[in-house]
Amino acid sequence: MKVGVIMGSKSDLPVMQEAIDILNGFDIEVEVDIVSAHRTPEKLFDYGKHAHTRGFAVVIAGAGGAAHLPGMIASLSPLPVIGVPVKSSNSIDGWDSVLSILQMPGGVPVATVALNGAKNAGILAAQIIGSSDKCVLDKIIAYKEGLKIKVNESAKDLQ
Amino acid sequence: MKVGVIMGSKSDLPVMQEAIDILNGFDIEVEVDIVSAHRTPEKLFDYGKHAHTRGFAVVIAGAGGAAHLPGMIASLSPLPVIGVPVKSSNSIDGWDSVLSILQMPGGVPVATVALNGAKNAGILAAQIIGSSDKCVLDKIIAYKEGLKIKVNESAKDLQ
Amino acid sequence: MKVGVIMGSKSDLPVMQEAIDILNGFDIEVEVDIVSAHRTPEKLFDYGKHAHTRGFAVVIAGAGGAAHLPGMIASLSPLPVIGVPVKSSNSIDGWDSVLSILQMPGGVPVATVALNGAKNAGILAAQIIGSSDKCVLDKIIAYKEGLKIKVNESAKDLQ
Amino acid sequence: MKVGVIMGSKSDLPVMQEAIDILNGFDIEVEVDIVSAHRTPEKLFDYGKHAHTRGFAVVIAGAGGAAHLPGMIASLSPLPVIGVPVKSSNSIDGWDSVLSILQMPGGVPVATVALNGAKNAGILAAQIIGSSDKCVLDKIIAYKEGLKIKVNESAKDLQ
Amino acid sequence: MKVGVIMGSKSDLPVMQEAIDILNGFDIEVEVDIVSAHRTPEKLFDYGKHAHTRGFAVVIAGAGGAAHLPGMIASLSPLPVIGVPVKSSNSIDGWDSVLSILQMPGGVPVATVALNGAKNAGILAAQIIGSSDKCVLDKIIAYKEGLKIKVNESAKDLQ
Amino acid sequence: MKVGVIMGSKSDLPVMQEAIDILNGFDIEVEVDIVSAHRTPEKLFDYGKHAHTRGFAVVIAGAGGAAHLPGMIASLSPLPVIGVPVKSSNSIDGWDSVLSILQMPGGVPVATVALNGAKNAGILAAQIIGSSDKCVLDKIIAYKEGLKIKVNESAKDLQ
Amino acid sequence: MKVGVIMGSKSDLPVMQEAIDILNGFDIEVEVDIVSAHRTPEKLFDYGKHAHTRGFAVVIAGAGGAAHLPGMIASLSPLPVIGVPVKSSNSIDGWDSVLSILQMPGGVPVATVALNGAKNAGILAAQIIGSSDKCVLDKIIAYKEGLKIKVNESAKDLQ
Amino acid sequence: MKVGVIMGSKSDLPVMQEAIDILNGFDIEVEVDIVSAHRTPEKLFDYGKHAHTRGFAVVIAGAGGAAHLPGMIASLSPLPVIGVPVKSSNSIDGWDSVLSILQMPGGVPVATVALNGAKNAGILAAQIIGSSDKCVLDKIIAYKEGLKIKVNESAKDLQ
Repeated sequence: MKVGVIMGSKSDLPVMQEAIDILNGFDIEVEVDIVSAHRTPEKLFDYGKHAHTRGFAVVIAGAGGAAHLPGMIASLSPLPVIGVPVKSSNSIDGWDSVLSILQMPGGVPVATVALNGAKNAGILAAQIIGSSDKCVLDKIIAYKEGLKIKVNESAKDLQ
Repeated sequence: MKVGVIMGSKSDLPVMQEAIDILNGFDIEVEVDIVSAHRTPEKLFDYGKHAHTRGFAVVIAGAGGAAHLPGMIASLSPLPVIGVPVKSSNSIDGWDSVLSILQMPGGVPVATVALNGAKNAGILAAQIIGSSDKCVLDKIIAYKEGLKIKVNESAKDLQ
Repeated sequence: MKVGVIMGSKSDLPVMQEAIDILNGFDIEVEVDIVSAHRTPEKLFDYGKHAHTRGFAVVIAGAGGAAHLPGMIASLSPLPVIGVPVKSSNSIDGWDSVLSILQMPGGVPVATVALNGAKNAGILAAQIIGSSDKCVLDKIIAYKEGLKIKVNESAKDLQ
Repeated sequence: MKVGVIMGSKSDLPVMQEAIDILNGFDIEVEVDIVSAHRTPEKLFDYGKHAHTRGFAVVIAGAGGAAHLPGMIASLSPLPVIGVPVKSSNSIDGWDSVLSILQMPGGVPVATVALNGAKNAGILAAQIIGSSDKCVLDKIIAYKEGLKIKVNESAKDLQ
Repeated sequence: MKVGVIMGSKSDLPVMQEAIDILNGFDIEVEVDIVSAHRTPEKLFDYGKHAHTRGFAVVIAGAGGAAHLPGMIASLSPLPVIGVPVKSSNSIDGWDSVLSILQMPGGVPVATVALNGAKNAGILAAQIIGSSDKCVLDKIIAYKEGLKIKVNESAKDLQ
Repeated sequence: MKVGVIMGSKSDLPVMQEAIDILNGFDIEVEVDIVSAHRTPEKLFDYGKHAHTRGFAVVIAGAGGAAHLPGMIASLSPLPVIGVPVKSSNSIDGWDSVLSILQMPGGVPVATVALNGAKNAGILAAQIIGSSDKCVLDKIIAYKEGLKIKVNESAKDLQ
Repeated sequence: MKVGVIMGSKSDLPVMQEAIDILNGFDIEVEVDIVSAHRTPEKLFDYGKHAHTRGFAVVIAGAGGAAHLPGMIASLSPLPVIGVPVKSSNSIDGWDSVLSILQMPGGVPVATVALNGAKNAGILAAQIIGSSDKCVLDKIIAYKEGLKIKVNESAKDLQ
Repeated sequence: MKVGVIMGSKSDLPVMQEAIDILNGFDIEVEVDIVSAHRTPEKLFDYGKHAHTRGFAVVIAGAGGAAHLPGMIASLSPLPVIGVPVKSSNSIDGWDSVLSILQMPGGVPVATVALNGAKNAGILAAQIIGSSDKCVLDKIIAYKEGLKIKVNESAKDLQ
């Protein structure tokens, strides 16, 4: 089982790299691609239509502004789709990408994470796989334990 | 030359009817359809791909919430696309549909009108046709004259 | 594999019922409970700590206002958590629940759906199960086919 | 047929230049001017009143803050008017120019594009001309093809 | 010295009536008219150009949505212009009229009052006249005394 | 007749200086002071109570964040009060100062100008004086003529 | 020790009553009054100056729109001041009262509660008293226990 | 009596230090710690459960984004809890932390201060202690006197 990570433009890569890194850290296979809903609609169609037959368990889609990529993949695919609102340069403070990913109509969900929250998109994808894969679940439990240790260490530093 | 008026759901019809009525008033042929970006992606694709070869001069697309219909038609068609943000029931005060229609990335414009502004979408479509059709342009000039007369009458009523 | 559906208050039930109904429609077992982050913190703790050992694959948590329930379950559990922002009576147009569920810090994702989008939360939970369960995946494919048919019928009605 | 590109202040030129460049790229004649609704109302009046008799097919108007230029040209001219909200220095994050251009009353549309979206205003103007001019339409089809190729190349680079 | 009270549409009258009433209460002459920036631009021009030679001391202008009336009068007239943002039916919660009246560029102020705050517009107009007219100033002092008495009475009622 | 220019903190001076400069340019006497509603309430009280007996025709008050200075002066004085919302460092994008100055209750208006719009506050104060002083009115007419000339020159530069 | 509950207008009483009721429930003495920052500034001054010498431990102040009452009491009194943003009729969705109470400058805090959150203002006042009064603290512990029991009962009802 | 100052992450310290400094200035004992609602839920639980038995009079909790720390401490403790919304790096302009701290449900208040307003949180904590401790109250009166003197000095500098 692998995770597809796609983005609307290469300029989204610095944000989306965090999803790739976290999935690599969980030893989950990732396939990265650029798919633009507005400039490569045929590729979008092809990607969305066949994602579930190509071995993907989840698709993570990041886009900025009027961000239609996550919602259109969710329209085309029966897989869970995670949407990452990216705060692009001419965005109105990120509200445009947040709302155009989050506010999907009844019937077609997108699992939306925080603005620029690609890291959390990666963790969520791992959790989705982990919900039926004990080995991945254990890695998430360990990851969460690691978060705790770091906070405790920084608390000690403070004292 | 005709205008395509499409909407994401039949529940958008009360809003979108104003576009149809105004175009009828200008004797411009209208073809109405329901095309859902999220529930009928193949129809969306087909509609967008062939609109310019089916005799449409303009497409008016209305949708609410995370409104992807106008932007996806703009992605697929070389025609001017007018987007009508519809204030649907679970909308966050209409901001979601406004921003997901307006904030299109560079390369793929949508001519956005006001929230629930289907009437203006119809007039704008007529103006687009009128920009190369003297007869329609004259009708718009007359229409604008009519607006003026109504305001002047209501001003007289006031005194 | 079953889905936990929890909410902060009984007043959230009319919204959250849609998640329960859709999961029932997919023949997925659902366990419903009221867990208030702010009024029953011990129950919250217990629920979050043990959800993954009690047979849940996913937890759906709905709450309004300063909505901490989804994020705190995500803090405590390694399972994927779906958050439903509920537009409660004194909410500031729903922005409070949307932002307090969506904007989780790096490390602890909540899969957020639209304001009052419990139906989509149910579908997303099914998709998560379907990502490793061919039988559920097929039901989702059929469900999406059903959406398409309904739109096409309403399009026919229009003509 | 030519396009009028006007702006409220010379400080809007860096944003508006993108509209001029894209129209030049389509070999469409452009006439650029500064017309301030608030500081040169007579020029505004004159421009709006005569645009359609001076050979313009479309007017693109850009302005920031309480942006009245696009709406006032739309009030005065029967031509399609494209409004570009410009994010000026004391703007409240661009919301002021977006809303004062977009939210026109029934009867007087402005085709609004994204914040600082002058490039899209240029493309939209070309599409409006292209809706009755096969030669320009073909250029738009080619332009869209070009967008696709660039995305595909950047996708290849990624792999 | 008299005050001009104008509005973009007769539907604004219920809101604007409060300005008329308060000025009547101060025995200040009022002239009411409907002037639409978008539908009667010639009347707008004429009104703005000649207001200061027709005996007006102040102009109060109310409008909703993309509200250009106050700003355009301020563009055309050297008189102080008071703008009343009106919350019209398709307004986005009033933000559009507030921002398109308030955020005027440097050089052309509009004295903006609260959303639907026509009463305060009337008082402000009286204060402007009162700043050079001792008799009107005294009326304002008395008016403010009256406000105080009413609050004190309602405080007594409470006990 | 003179104008009082006050501000809540010395850090507001760079913004408020524009009001002082423009009034100096109109040869209108200005008296500048720092009056903090929250840190010097007695001075606020004294200033507000006596402004109209100390020869002021108008008071301009600038403040940031939860900006109570303009409204409290308006509470205490029968004079017209112009409020300048200042975008201070911890402001939420200026919305806090705009709304806490603009949204005054019925009975107590503040003439609000744009965010950081101190220049317009100065012009508005001059217009208020000019509404009863022909000499100042003529200066405003000349000032507006000057704005026009500058725009026309920059338009010529462009060609 | 008693708590002062004040509001800007009698129309705020239905909201503010919840604070009174909860304090009565904790057997804490309450003194209710109407004090308008904008219409009774002298009473405001007097109230703020002497609250700490009149036996108050805390002041709860509720107001809507540009709500200056809580901040001005905090300016005048060394006591902790709790601010209740009230969603009044012409409020812009409550944002105005929230921001004009919350965003106080450094040096003069207001303890702000949720929009219309008078009940929580009452509880917070009790907690403040309880922080030095064991008997009141025990009542709060019991109150919180009561909240828990009600949630558990409604959870049982659900099953 | 001492004050607990906690924050969700060490990166909040530069903001939260202002609370510590002001309390030190009032000679009030402070205990600082890092407690993350999302990464150290057990520590959160322990802290909240025992704060009132460990000698704290007040807890100040600062956090950014979907900020659950203040609300969860308020859920667990009968003490007054002061919440400081911190504007973290991926925050949507601070709205997320403001709303997720402020908009607590009925029964569980958080005394919210301005965005990044840790200084005011410190003063508020001192005021809470001062409400039953004459010596601390006198220090606050002196502190407020000091604010006044500084403003008056900067006013003198201006002249």
